[in-house]
Amino acid sequence: MKCVAIGIDVGGTNISFGVVTDQGEIIYKTHSPTHQYPIPEDFVEWISQNIVKFSVDQPNVIIQGIGVGAPNGNIHSGQIVFAPNLPWKGEISLAQMLTTQTGLQTTLTNDANAAAWGEMLYGAARGCKDFLFITLGTGLGSGIVSGGEMIYGHDGFAGEVGHMILFPEGRDCGCGRKGCVEAYCSASAILLTYYELGGENVCSAQEIFNRAQQGEGLAIQAFEQTGNWLGLVLANCVAVTSPEKIILFGGLAQAGEVLLSPTIKSFENNLLTIYRNKIPIIISQLPGNDSAILGAAALAFGTKASRR
Amino acid sequence: MKCVAIGIDVGGTNISFGVVTDQGEIIYKTHSPTHQYPIPEDFVEWISQNIVKFSVDQPNVIIQGIGVGAPNGNIHSGQIVFAPNLPWKGEISLAQMLTTQTGLQTTLTNDANAAAWGEMLYGAARGCKDFLFITLGTGLGSGIVSGGEMIYGHDGFAGEVGHMILFPEGRDCGCGRKGCVEAYCSASAILLTYYELGGENVCSAQEIFNRAQQGEGLAIQAFEQTGNWLGLVLANCVAVTSPEKIILFGGLAQAGEVLLSPTIKSFENNLLTIYRNKIPIIISQLPGNDSAILGAAALAFGTKASRR
Repeated sequence: MKCVAIGIDVGGTNISFGVVTDQGEIIYKTHSPTHQYPIPEDFVEWISQNIVKFSVDQPNVIIQGIGVGAPNGNIHSGQIVFAPNLPWKGEISLAQMLTTQTGLQTTLTNDANAAAWGEMLYGAARGCKDFLFITLGTGLGSGIVSGGEMIYGHDGFAGEVGHMILFPEGRDCGCGRKGCVEAYCSASAILLTYYELGGENVCSAQEIFNRAQQGEGLAIQAFEQTGNWLGLVLANCVAVTSPEKIILFGGLAQAGEVLLSPTIKSFENNLLTIYRNKIPIIISQLPGNDSAILGAAALAFGTKASRR
Repeated sequence: MKCVAIGIDVGGTNISFGVVTDQGEIIYKTHSPTHQYPIPEDFVEWISQNIVKFSVDQPNVIIQGIGVGAPNGNIHSGQIVFAPNLPWKGEISLAQMLTTQTGLQTTLTNDANAAAWGEMLYGAARGCKDFLFITLGTGLGSGIVSGGEMIYGHDGFAGEVGHMILFPEGRDCGCGRKGCVEAYCSASAILLTYYELGGENVCSAQEIFNRAQQGEGLAIQAFEQTGNWLGLVLANCVAVTSPEKIILFGGLAQAGEVLLSPTIKSFENNLLTIYRNKIPIIISQLPGNDSAILGAAALAFGTKASRR
């Protein structure tokens, strides 16, 4: 009998469903647009159908449980709490709903934490006990591992690096405050940065990346400015947890050198001497959203047991 | 037979030596000015003499080991590393030196971490597994506990909140960079703040406190401004580790309400909604440097065993 867990990555645009072996191999994967599930009951139904379908196809497999990574997911309560980018409003007891529907034990945490677990078990942070994992997507998410343990905080809400205040009274942030890190360092923020530098009003970070690749000065500057800010933020995080490495993940991170180079330069300039020249910043190499699926599945296996 | 540990707090001005029971009672305490020990060998000799004297006086006591809290102390290496406020320069293998001289196992960590342990075992953080401990002295030190574990980082240098950059290109910091938190939120920083607000060039934070107590507007403003900055810094730290409470310690914290009130106001204003109105900021109630001695002794007992 093969032993597997279900790993689910809930995103603002897509929801991914994966079946993962206890060796960290994804043996089945599907996805669906988030907007197809205007209420969480529809989503739970879709997950349940996938599990039934998989079980019928592969009867000799034992499903150990379900792990979910979701924006504003809280590991203590199993709830998604006021996630601005999801159609489901308020507090959603998603872990409980999935368990009731499927009979499988469900563990839920925030999407960045799940992806950080995935990196620790199967990716760039393998064997690393102290690292900082940053997702640069529409917003900026983070998962922080210290001494081999995820920092969840007393209420499960640790790791909101995107909502540290970088510039008091600065840009408006989606959270209702001003000057948050994610208003400067994210795929949506770079659109504003590009515009403020004198660029056109474009609608995707990918477009700015394409222009930078074609050598457009303003687009390159927009990445440089973003890297300057990001390097400062990462240096400030290092002063708190002193990680061994930093892993960047998500769409904006895929820009590669045009972002990484100014980020590292600013990072080293802003580090206290004792931290300099020893903390690599690495871009995640796990394909697509695999780290979130893998990390979520690892939660279901029980992270301690499956850590390797 | 009574079982005790030696707890030592090394400060820039004074060194304190305490003998602590496994119940957390300080049964003997003495101190000496740091400048009396221009080389670490002199300090080790003084500690050794104290231990011998104590052992002769109380022959029925078993000394379990020595714990030391020192600026720039590193728990992994047992070294004090380039501490700007100590007479001992470079890298000092103090734990090894003490063990060689006394035959007692020695554990060394940074002074703020030792004091944070003391608060967790015997003070305001008793029973608390997630808290942020801030010392407001000449500089700003920090000890961060997450899930009941001290965050040491991969190299033992975590918890340098005083060297997060608050204002890029801001005030000169003793570390050689600009804009660090401790250049705005510390006993030495408030002298500059007071002066910049138009106050006299006074030589101690105590003097500004006295003036604030007498109702001098500029002195009160200096505390308000310091509290505004400190509240922002603490809110940013919460976004990383989501603590249950924050404990302020050290000379400047003793100012009490005149600092605490603006700090809490700014803190709440700068917090992300999910953290608001639930994280108390408390001033340490342990007398003098007892928390550092207690925490250092707890290290010697083995923190896990003595955690209660």
